Amino acid sequence: MGTTILSDLGTEIVIPICAVVGIIFSLFQWYLVSQVKLSLEKPTGDDKNGFTEALIEEEEGINDHTVVQKCAEIQTAISEGATSFLFTEYQYVGVFMVIFAGLIFVFLGSVEGFSTSSQVCTYDATRMCKPALMTAVFSTVSFVLGAITSVISGFLGMKIATYANARTTLEARKGVGKAFIVAFRSGAVMGFLLAANGLLVLYITINLFKIYYGDDWEGLFESITGYGLGGSSMALFGRVGGGIYTKAADVGADLVGKIERNIPEDDPRNPAVIADNVGDNVGDIAGMGSDLFGSYAESSCAALVVASISSFGSTHDFTAMMYPLIVSSVGIIVCLITTLFATDFFEVKTVKQIEPALKNQLIISTVLMTIGIALVSWVALPSSFTIFNFGTQKVVKNWQLFLCVCVGLWAGLIIGFVTEYYTSNAYSPVQDVADSCRTGAATNVIFGLALGYKSVIIPIFAIAVSIFVSFSFAAMYGVAVAALGMLSTIATGLAIDAYGPISDNAGGIAEMAGMSHRIRERTDALDAAGNTTAAIGKGFAIGSAALVSLALFGAFVSRAEITTVDVLTPKVFIGLLVGAMLPYWFSAMTMKSVGKAALKMVEEVRRQFNEIPGLMEGTAKPDYATCVKISTDASIKEMIPPGALVMLTPLIVGIFFGVETLSGVLAGSLVSGVQIAISASNTGGAWDNAKKYIEAGVSDHAKTLGPKGSDAHKAAVIGDTVGDPLKDTSGPSLNILIKLMAVESLVFAPFFAAHGGLLFKLF
Amino acid sequence: MGTTILSDLGTEIVIPICAVVGIIFSLFQWYLVSQVKLSLEKPTGDDKNGFTEALIEEEEGINDHTVVQKCAEIQTAISEGATSFLFTEYQYVGVFMVIFAGLIFVFLGSVEGFSTSSQVCTYDATRMCKPALMTAVFSTVSFVLGAITSVISGFLGMKIATYANARTTLEARKGVGKAFIVAFRSGAVMGFLLAANGLLVLYITINLFKIYYGDDWEGLFESITGYGLGGSSMALFGRVGGGIYTKAADVGADLVGKIERNIPEDDPRNPAVIADNVGDNVGDIAGMGSDLFGSYAESSCAALVVASISSFGSTHDFTAMMYPLIVSSVGIIVCLITTLFATDFFEVKTVKQIEPALKNQLIISTVLMTIGIALVSWVALPSSFTIFNFGTQKVVKNWQLFLCVCVGLWAGLIIGFVTEYYTSNAYSPVQDVADSCRTGAATNVIFGLALGYKSVIIPIFAIAVSIFVSFSFAAMYGVAVAALGMLSTIATGLAIDAYGPISDNAGGIAEMAGMSHRIRERTDALDAAGNTTAAIGKGFAIGSAALVSLALFGAFVSRAEITTVDVLTPKVFIGLLVGAMLPYWFSAMTMKSVGKAALKMVEEVRRQFNEIPGLMEGTAKPDYATCVKISTDASIKEMIPPGALVMLTPLIVGIFFGVETLSGVLAGSLVSGVQIAISASNTGGAWDNAKKYIEAGVSDHAKTLGPKGSDAHKAAVIGDTVGDPLKDTSGPSLNILIKLMAVESLVFAPFFAAHGGLLFKLF
Repeated sequence: MGTTILSDLGTEIVIPICAVVGIIFSLFQWYLVSQVKLSLEKPTGDDKNGFTEALIEEEEGINDHTVVQKCAEIQTAISEGATSFLFTEYQYVGVFMVIFAGLIFVFLGSVEGFSTSSQVCTYDATRMCKPALMTAVFSTVSFVLGAITSVISGFLGMKIATYANARTTLEARKGVGKAFIVAFRSGAVMGFLLAANGLLVLYITINLFKIYYGDDWEGLFESITGYGLGGSSMALFGRVGGGIYTKAADVGADLVGKIERNIPEDDPRNPAVIADNVGDNVGDIAGMGSDLFGSYAESSCAALVVASISSFGSTHDFTAMMYPLIVSSVGIIVCLITTLFATDFFEVKTVKQIEPALKNQLIISTVLMTIGIALVSWVALPSSFTIFNFGTQKVVKNWQLFLCVCVGLWAGLIIGFVTEYYTSNAYSPVQDVADSCRTGAATNVIFGLALGYKSVIIPIFAIAVSIFVSFSFAAMYGVAVAALGMLSTIATGLAIDAYGPISDNAGGIAEMAGMSHRIRERTDALDAAGNTTAAIGKGFAIGSAALVSLALFGAFVSRAEITTVDVLTPKVFIGLLVGAMLPYWFSAMTMKSVGKAALKMVEEVRRQFNEIPGLMEGTAKPDYATCVKISTDASIKEMIPPGALVMLTPLIVGIFFGVETLSGVLAGSLVSGVQIAISASNTGGAWDNAKKYIEAGVSDHAKTLGPKGSDAHKAAVIGDTVGDPLKDTSGPSLNILIKLMAVESLVFAPFFAAHGGLLFKLF
Repeated sequence: MGTTILSDLGTEIVIPICAVVGIIFSLFQWYLVSQVKLSLEKPTGDDKNGFTEALIEEEEGINDHTVVQKCAEIQTAISEGATSFLFTEYQYVGVFMVIFAGLIFVFLGSVEGFSTSSQVCTYDATRMCKPALMTAVFSTVSFVLGAITSVISGFLGMKIATYANARTTLEARKGVGKAFIVAFRSGAVMGFLLAANGLLVLYITINLFKIYYGDDWEGLFESITGYGLGGSSMALFGRVGGGIYTKAADVGADLVGKIERNIPEDDPRNPAVIADNVGDNVGDIAGMGSDLFGSYAESSCAALVVASISSFGSTHDFTAMMYPLIVSSVGIIVCLITTLFATDFFEVKTVKQIEPALKNQLIISTVLMTIGIALVSWVALPSSFTIFNFGTQKVVKNWQLFLCVCVGLWAGLIIGFVTEYYTSNAYSPVQDVADSCRTGAATNVIFGLALGYKSVIIPIFAIAVSIFVSFSFAAMYGVAVAALGMLSTIATGLAIDAYGPISDNAGGIAEMAGMSHRIRERTDALDAAGNTTAAIGKGFAIGSAALVSLALFGAFVSRAEITTVDVLTPKVFIGLLVGAMLPYWFSAMTMKSVGKAALKMVEEVRRQFNEIPGLMEGTAKPDYATCVKISTDASIKEMIPPGALVMLTPLIVGIFFGVETLSGVLAGSLVSGVQIAISASNTGGAWDNAKKYIEAGVSDHAKTLGPKGSDAHKAAVIGDTVGDPLKDTSGPSLNILIKLMAVESLVFAPFFAAHGGLLFKLF
């Protein structure tokens, strides 16, 4: 089997160093962003110093200090709204987390009847392992740690984004290049902080747990899976709650503002405008941060738990065992270099360079990471080893594992490009959708839905090839590291992803602060690219979720001690059928929630326009707080049922129908959910950009459809509004649905195997 | 094992007698419909006699002979358009069928290298079976027979519907009850003719093939599977081609007529109006007829092929072997009695009685059929027998098989009721959707999509329970007979299904013939009930398709000689993932096709309104023929790619990736497709009825949304238009996708098992 080139001590040093480098880099980027001053005389909000306005005195409006003041005010309002919502959300979710932590402890503790004596190991009958009760305790602890890390990830992301949005607006006065740098750097702050933080916490947790577990790696990494579950549970509520919040506000604001009152997007007279901007930060930023952190945590956990019962685990080869974490560590360094290409090596000067600059980030990080993976696979893996494969051990070479990680990485790039093709208005699909607006909203919706369905094809083939290669080479461990490969450039992915909502907010602030049309045009250009990167980010999130879920599913099956999941048995087949239905049930809930909340918002906005004299004329201020409250209340209330559906399904199926049916449910929801998630997010992205295409009116074709307010534009706005809940609420939440059900099943697998399937036992 | 109470001779007599009774009853209904005279002095079109207008001289407009003349003219135009389209369609499809028949012969013949010598039987090594070459020949013959029967079914359905529509209009002058009877009787003509014809052809084919095959029932029923494939292939093109035709015309007519020109639906000034009415007959009637005939043929074939390798086959128990056909025979008699409840035992007098009358048909037929099945299971089955279950033989009692058929039958009723609840405007779901039109088209679309997703839940549970019960009791044979149970009342199902488009057409003819508002109101009431019954019919079609596909899938697996389909192997999993994607690909194609064809139609209709002077004023006649031609050309051209996708996928996957991956593809497309199909057809039905709810303005709530032309109504029209391709093109075609891929795999199974999986063999 051989040994690794990198020593265990080396591994113990490399991982934390890379994580710390990532954190330092992130703080440095933050420092650079903070050089854009929002304060005049006295500091406001997050800004801790009182420098004078020396740097920004070049172009138009630079000396207009009231504008800076206004921007600062708006930023504070957004930041306060977002903070207050997240605190409310975390309070509710906190209660749930405590209950669920209790459930984990009770269920896992009961597997061996809360016995405190050691037991024979499951996969190596010659050795003794720690008692199941202690694994229950440590699983609960790692669950809580995962949840807290996820909360921190989402919260920090939101703080950074709300810190950066007004600064991007102010820089936009100097030119599009400067604004781009600020927005992008802020995205990088979030990307690196999340990636490094997630890695560091996981690394420290493993090392602390190891003190108790010692040589019992089976138990150690079993309990670590709680980390993934905690991360993903929080992500679910973050995504669903944030998604409902942002879209209720957005749809509500658009329906009255744009369609009825004919005022521009983000007009300060619109009472829902602050809620809308808050929503971008709590939904797209905090939700996405938690989501991708969850994917990362879960794929690491899936890889670790499979490795622990493979040769790495049984020979106690620490470096090889830590292979997934070393890949992520190198990923941070690769992303660091990649970031410099956007911020230092090249400079964005014109609008046309924005999209290529972001696209290059994907390409550069993928190419560099391929080299990084080769290096890691060479030094951190023995040349040959065995991997647990549903009851048997499969011999794997290190170059095969290298290919597994690579295939995931490159599949991610392909998904990114396909997503770009279908959602960017530079290509024919979105232009066709825009063109169909000529004949009204109905054809727009039909074409948009068809586009979303079609956009599923290549990503599914890319995922299928990744699965086939990685699965064939290294069973479920291969699939888990393929997922890690796709997520290895997560820092860059998050950076370009967070860039989108930051630019969106920057545009909103420019509009609200009454800045000139020229500045709004610059932020709009940033935002249009941001729509595409947001869709790409969702593509990554979905692709990695598919791989992660499969790896977790495989790990679940291993732990539940079943060796085949045969479709040709009634138990499995009905699971498959019902599992494939769950994403529809979940989508129905979340879309209806957005619809209902949006209706309430519409009523409130209409009421304010009717009852507040002088609002339309701009002489009176709207009551922003009521709209913020409507979004908050609606999202808190409405996130419970879909959350419960996802969290309870594995428990109910496992307890009453047993592990075979649960396997079917997991496979069914995976293969069905991934399709709806991709099509929903691409349909929504395409509608949004079709609308932007008509509004921008750059090409001759676009000019025949526009301008704003034309019939075609009105039809495009309807499509955009329909797409909002698809792309920002139900679509992205589906990733979490499939991941979370799988990781939850994995954590509870010993319990289901011991006490599950009550219904079949009765009859 | 025991013997059956019913002797083989009894079986040989019962089946054809029931079929003939069905045909006679159908012809009698036709005679009753023909009593409504369309001709005045000289006979037109289908009407072969020259009686005078004696019968219809009671209520308003009865003596207006110009109206009768006009109705006759319009009916002739519709009938001619539909006939000409179907002939064109059949020509193209005919070429395809000949090629495909050749493929079947070559592929199946090559299994044993075109050897003409007998071979050892697959499932009984002690006996000799007929050569594979002859099975290739007979499979090809039964494929052609299935295709021809399907063509006849669709064509006759269309002829009956176009014969009945104008007669329904004329009867509407006398009252809603009379019109209902004509529309319903015409539906019954189609239902009984199709059910009886399908049964009779299958029965005769089996008896003729038996002359050659003798005791080799394995080969006999293997070759009979071609009948299902032929039926389903035709149904695919019928559904897709007809679906594109009808919706291109409908969407095109609505977009210009209702939205731009503000003229009513079916206004004779609209150039696309004839194409629209032709579409109802070629899409909803001929397509649905072929589709349900296909389901019936396939479930019979699936049951027969499994039975042939079970104890029925090995002991040559003819009566038990024919159990599926006897169930269908009794079904015809049960439906006959059920029909009398609608036409003779009770009378529909008011609008409110229409929906209950149709609903009662479902309930009565289900209750009576339960008794019928009990009887058949008692007399036609031995008390105990064995069923082939993936390599082993499973012992089954006759009461267990009774439960299998019943669970399918009752699941069908549940699906019917759930569909009614979600698509009828008498209940809150559709009213909520209508209410969401207050805030515009966007919320209408969001609520409609959410409704469709939600409506999937209970039907999926109903199907899952049926599968679990029938699969557990009697393996794949159980699933096949459960499907047959759901389809055993097909004559009634088709009757109430065909009733919908006939009423729709009747309304169109009333409008075009310039009849009074009151008559149009009567036909609208019939039509609104028809929308719901159409959705129920689609629910049945989808539910039975799910069961049929699973049974065919099981039969395929048996014939391909694999015993497990393990999700935890890369070959199967990627199949599952890609299979789940296929319905999206297919939907993308069909929806885009409708969109494109509708755009062309819109341009033509606009052109005519702009270029033909006096068209809007009603002084000039539009050029209907050009619109008919656009629909015809578009549907013929656009049906090829989706058709090819469905027909080629099993061949490509089987040849290059082998039977395991193909199994995955079948399971994936089944569990994913059934969800999209249900949600698409219910979303579309709900939007249509939400619009009708606002238009009718019966309740206080509806009045606040209307009247026609209000903003809420406009929003509802947009939803309705989006729903058209969902509910009438892509949704219902998906049933055929999942069934057809399964039956095709079954037919080609020996070839794939012998020569498939080239790609994996190479590497």
